[in-house]
Amino acid sequence: MKIELITIGDEILLGHTQDTNSNWIASQLSEYGFHLRWVSIVGDNPSDMKHQLRRAWDRADVILVTGGLGPTHDDITRPVIAKFFNDDLVLRDDLSEWIQSKFTAREIDPPPGYEVMAEFPSHAIPILNEYGSAPGIHYNLDDRELFAMPGVPIEMRGMFTNYVLPELKKKTTEYYKHRILKTAGIGEAYLSELIGDPAKIAPVTLAYLPSIDHGVTLRLSLSGKDAKEIDTILKQAEGYIQSSISEYIYATDQISLEKVILDMLESKGMKLAVAESCTGGLMASRLVAIPGSSNSFDRGYVTYSNEAKIASLSVSEELLESCGAVSAEVAVAMAEGTVECAGVDIAVSVTGIAGPTGGTEEKPVGLVYIAVADQKGGAIQQFRFDGDRNTNRRRSAQAALVMLWQKLKGYE
Amino acid sequence: MKIELITIGDEILLGHTQDTNSNWIASQLSEYGFHLRWVSIVGDNPSDMKHQLRRAWDRADVILVTGGLGPTHDDITRPVIAKFFNDDLVLRDDLSEWIQSKFTAREIDPPPGYEVMAEFPSHAIPILNEYGSAPGIHYNLDDRELFAMPGVPIEMRGMFTNYVLPELKKKTTEYYKHRILKTAGIGEAYLSELIGDPAKIAPVTLAYLPSIDHGVTLRLSLSGKDAKEIDTILKQAEGYIQSSISEYIYATDQISLEKVILDMLESKGMKLAVAESCTGGLMASRLVAIPGSSNSFDRGYVTYSNEAKIASLSVSEELLESCGAVSAEVAVAMAEGTVECAGVDIAVSVTGIAGPTGGTEEKPVGLVYIAVADQKGGAIQQFRFDGDRNTNRRRSAQAALVMLWQKLKGYE
Repeated sequence: MKIELITIGDEILLGHTQDTNSNWIASQLSEYGFHLRWVSIVGDNPSDMKHQLRRAWDRADVILVTGGLGPTHDDITRPVIAKFFNDDLVLRDDLSEWIQSKFTAREIDPPPGYEVMAEFPSHAIPILNEYGSAPGIHYNLDDRELFAMPGVPIEMRGMFTNYVLPELKKKTTEYYKHRILKTAGIGEAYLSELIGDPAKIAPVTLAYLPSIDHGVTLRLSLSGKDAKEIDTILKQAEGYIQSSISEYIYATDQISLEKVILDMLESKGMKLAVAESCTGGLMASRLVAIPGSSNSFDRGYVTYSNEAKIASLSVSEELLESCGAVSAEVAVAMAEGTVECAGVDIAVSVTGIAGPTGGTEEKPVGLVYIAVADQKGGAIQQFRFDGDRNTNRRRSAQAALVMLWQKLKGYE
Repeated sequence: MKIELITIGDEILLGHTQDTNSNWIASQLSEYGFHLRWVSIVGDNPSDMKHQLRRAWDRADVILVTGGLGPTHDDITRPVIAKFFNDDLVLRDDLSEWIQSKFTAREIDPPPGYEVMAEFPSHAIPILNEYGSAPGIHYNLDDRELFAMPGVPIEMRGMFTNYVLPELKKKTTEYYKHRILKTAGIGEAYLSELIGDPAKIAPVTLAYLPSIDHGVTLRLSLSGKDAKEIDTILKQAEGYIQSSISEYIYATDQISLEKVILDMLESKGMKLAVAESCTGGLMASRLVAIPGSSNSFDRGYVTYSNEAKIASLSVSEELLESCGAVSAEVAVAMAEGTVECAGVDIAVSVTGIAGPTGGTEEKPVGLVYIAVADQKGGAIQQFRFDGDRNTNRRRSAQAALVMLWQKLKGYE
């Protein structure tokens, strides 16, 4: 099935808006075994839109369109598509009422000109919009389909998931399934060495998806006509991969490392605090981003100055002088001081040189020490990162969460 | 000048990689008065690439291509483009030496197959790559141009800035200039009310560019053939806009609010500390992201639990009980406690309900209190945000930095 995506909007071609819809649609299609073959971006310009629709209709089986369905004068997708199919726009009372009801529910007045959204192509099927008021458009002609969705990400995502994807699934008799293994604390190259030749799990395919903030995600995929058979083969392959890298897997689903950590803490009734120097609040921020983090995350210290390390974490002035703020000794003292001062069960500390300045020959930019401590003692690791300031900060926060996760696993 | 961008890469169509190059190129072109008319994304597939090149060469004056210039088997942009122009790939000794020297300089061995990058189309001009080893390709035929650049963002950006942009400028006799006014603490609609009818500054055009983390940026633009005249008219328009909204402008250049704040603190010799509850380290992280922040930023407290607010910031237990953690009183006590406990000159505090849970009828999700305090006293503001958890956190961090900036301006 050849799928083409047309993204519409001057704001994207002017560089004012980063188009994230294409990436989201591409990964959703991949996830369900479909393949996006072409993407094009055109402006709010009837002629360019018409030409691109012509080309797409000639070569693709499915055309997805995003953007330009709203009520303002530059939203021209609806009339342009209707004209492309030689169709007429007709005021539909049911849509008009439905659109009005969306505003009534939010207790706000409809914006000027909202009625235009109820003028709908007579041969198309409206796609209701769960998160907004502009209906989507579905044409099904000569066994080809066109789906037009709004450009607002949440509205597009709702329509894609609830309407477009089920329609696409109807068009195929193939199943496409996959399993996810999320790993942390190991790079892509080392994982690949442990796993060995991917041919061993054929016909299952294996993709490595690395990320600075989330480790390496492995995706095992298989397509076929027999859902049960696919499940069996995938499960075998997953078992094989798991056995070779089990200690690095933190999730077999789309959940984050910080969520895994917070759940482990909560199930053990433990409280966590963090002490950050170069990461400067990044680790705390990742934890607090998770709803419910207050159950286990007690507090964070961003002890950027030496004075703060002394006052908040009881790091000794002598130690800071003799070893320097970026040292294994100070990292340990920060983590132990955090357990003590915050009265928590476990703590992680980070101290390092993020750059671009502040490095020396002995202690270069990218040198980071991370320590984990509980009431009984601690662990310390040295890292050497080679990115820019903020990449080093992100890698440090990730490494600190990995150490914390490893420590928590050790309790089991 | 009609400009078309062709982005090449299976990883983008599979959704594995978010294409950020298109957005960057679009905004760079806008910035220099050029307009990107079409973007298309095709896979590592010679037939799709050839068709898109054909179409682009027929309708555009300038074609930009990104991706597929590396040494591996799926990098096919170089041969496909050469074939498109009926050109031959010829091994160029100068390029071969240059590519080798790039690896020598980094003290690493060239990857297998690197020599292929020196096989260059005989009628094209190589574009040297400052940040990598794959040369770019420049064709100039029949007054039309094609520029092919690598997909790695830093390599593409270097080539675009140092080579492509100067070449494009040669093709036009028009100047396009703009001025930037960065504002904070006021929404787009209110700014627009203060500024009034944009026709007042015609022929200068005014764009509003809002962002959750950086306030609203205003961009004044003008094109013409006389650079000096453009400067004069722009300056007048800028003066007019400035006079109506001066108190909200924090920069007339591309610098961030946190950088402005850190510079103000440094020039006054003041030390800053922050206390965060719902933002959970986000504000500290934005400050620490700025190189040199250690000169003025002393520390941060992520006092997520009540115990932490009591222990680290000396907030009284009675106050927490009588007013609740999310209250104006506690926000003030947190800011004043931070000044006291950290021994700094000025402090900001944030306490609020980010959501999705934790709200009540009296204190709903999105309710946030922010206080600023110095040795003499403080200021407090209440906010009601309506986003999801992390949008509320980002808006809170921005609002806190705005309050801090306003307080610092008051000292002058």
